[in-house]
Amino acid sequence: MRAQRRLAIVGVGLMGGSLAAALREAGFAERIVGVDADPAALEEARSRGLIDEARGLEAAVGDADIVVLATPLGTLPDLLACVARGAAPEAIITDMGSAKGPLAAIGRDLGLARYVPGHPMAGSECSGPASARADLFAGRSVILTPTEITAEDAVDSVRAMWAAAHARVVLADPTTHDRLVAYTSHLPHLLAFACAELLAAEESPVVLAPFVGSGLKDFLRIAGSDPLMWRDVCAANATFLGPALAAFAEHLARLSDQLARGDFEGLMGHFTNARAFRADLMREIANGEH
Amino acid sequence: MRAQRRLAIVGVGLMGGSLAAALREAGFAERIVGVDADPAALEEARSRGLIDEARGLEAAVGDADIVVLATPLGTLPDLLACVARGAAPEAIITDMGSAKGPLAAIGRDLGLARYVPGHPMAGSECSGPASARADLFAGRSVILTPTEITAEDAVDSVRAMWAAAHARVVLADPTTHDRLVAYTSHLPHLLAFACAELLAAEESPVVLAPFVGSGLKDFLRIAGSDPLMWRDVCAANATFLGPALAAFAEHLARLSDQLARGDFEGLMGHFTNARAFRADLMREIANGEH
Repeated sequence: MRAQRRLAIVGVGLMGGSLAAALREAGFAERIVGVDADPAALEEARSRGLIDEARGLEAAVGDADIVVLATPLGTLPDLLACVARGAAPEAIITDMGSAKGPLAAIGRDLGLARYVPGHPMAGSECSGPASARADLFAGRSVILTPTEITAEDAVDSVRAMWAAAHARVVLADPTTHDRLVAYTSHLPHLLAFACAELLAAEESPVVLAPFVGSGLKDFLRIAGSDPLMWRDVCAANATFLGPALAAFAEHLARLSDQLARGDFEGLMGHFTNARAFRADLMREIANGEH
Repeated sequence: MRAQRRLAIVGVGLMGGSLAAALREAGFAERIVGVDADPAALEEARSRGLIDEARGLEAAVGDADIVVLATPLGTLPDLLACVARGAAPEAIITDMGSAKGPLAAIGRDLGLARYVPGHPMAGSECSGPASARADLFAGRSVILTPTEITAEDAVDSVRAMWAAAHARVVLADPTTHDRLVAYTSHLPHLLAFACAELLAAEESPVVLAPFVGSGLKDFLRIAGSDPLMWRDVCAANATFLGPALAAFAEHLARLSDQLARGDFEGLMGHFTNARAFRADLMREIANGEH
């Protein structure tokens, strides 16, 4: 394993910085080199001890056993092509992008047998290396979506890296990943953004504040997420987000119709189904966390 | 104040039980009598020391200075009329229902000058006296919606009661209350129920679990709420929930259209507005909590 312990992390924000912190704590990497377009982020990452050293992209990548791409989703297609050209033949490349289909296709098209597309199901509405924490991925799942050309030992190495960060690795094909996260992540974020904007149209914060309970506060937390990131997610996963949104709108129209007709027992039937499914889902999640 | 310290709490579940616990801790009530259709709940409330004694509705109400109705929303119209007949002339009646228009109207129609409609903006997806806790209302707002016939000293007494439970009392007219909670509470609950049911239609819990992040978990928490309660809420506030749902659907259709047209910059504009409003709202809420 020694040969795989020179790490380059491209993008030392919340995600890259947290992975660095976790791997540092686990003693997984012999040396972690950080790359970032923002000198202040690099300096913060270095002064917090997340990375050993800051270098330019070419130098960092050329010398690494594993390269982790942790920059915004929209930058990943070009970055992946560039890093693939600069990395050593045996080097493993992985990423943290929230949509996997387009990236897996690039990896396939470029013949990158050592690129392992990845997506940690963790994050926060905060950003930057100042928010990085070693336990961000602990107990969370990380989806890896190898393609038909991905080398098995490359998958094993990336799996070992995430295991060191105490994450649970799950394999899926890129299409299944993108379809499911459209429902479990992308749609809920869109709903939260939409709900916040609807509130804005209705009343001022000072009037609304006393009427906000913990349910809405928890729901709106994800509306604090980075708009740029979510622009990129929408662009990268429009194929599956579109149908998920349409299905949600259709379901909402049914509930709205029941409300208008005064069919409150019918509504309760939906609530009962929803609650039962949520209970099953939470049980399943809790099982996975053990 | 001594004369107002014999309390009857009708419904000793999560809400009534938590109020009892808080008032007990504050030494506000000289004696707390519990009423509940469920003998097991009464026994649990008594054994946990939430109430001093369990009695029938008539006996409890006839002897009380303040009667708090903490039963499901759907039971409140009949219960209010019944309690108003049985209570002493000087006794104050209040409730915890999530929709205030219909109850305020009944209070007005019955000429109840000492009925103060109320709604604590707190709760939990759990229920029953076993979940009751003394700090459920601490730092939370309680909306009181007196009508034109409500006596001012009755409002003051209910305000003092909630202050003893460390809640922040805010006055509003019933219509404003119902319009605002349609947006801040009722709509988000409907969205969470709808999202959970949509997930159920898409995949099984075991397949979905690894794809669920903390954002969705937090959002779905309110889909664990009592379906019966939410049936009642929908029935009591259909007037305002209907338009809120329609406005949300319209907004979602706009986002969906932008997604379909590939207008990702336009989407980002919405996300940016939403995020900014959320930040303002959270700041306002934090201010209120100081």
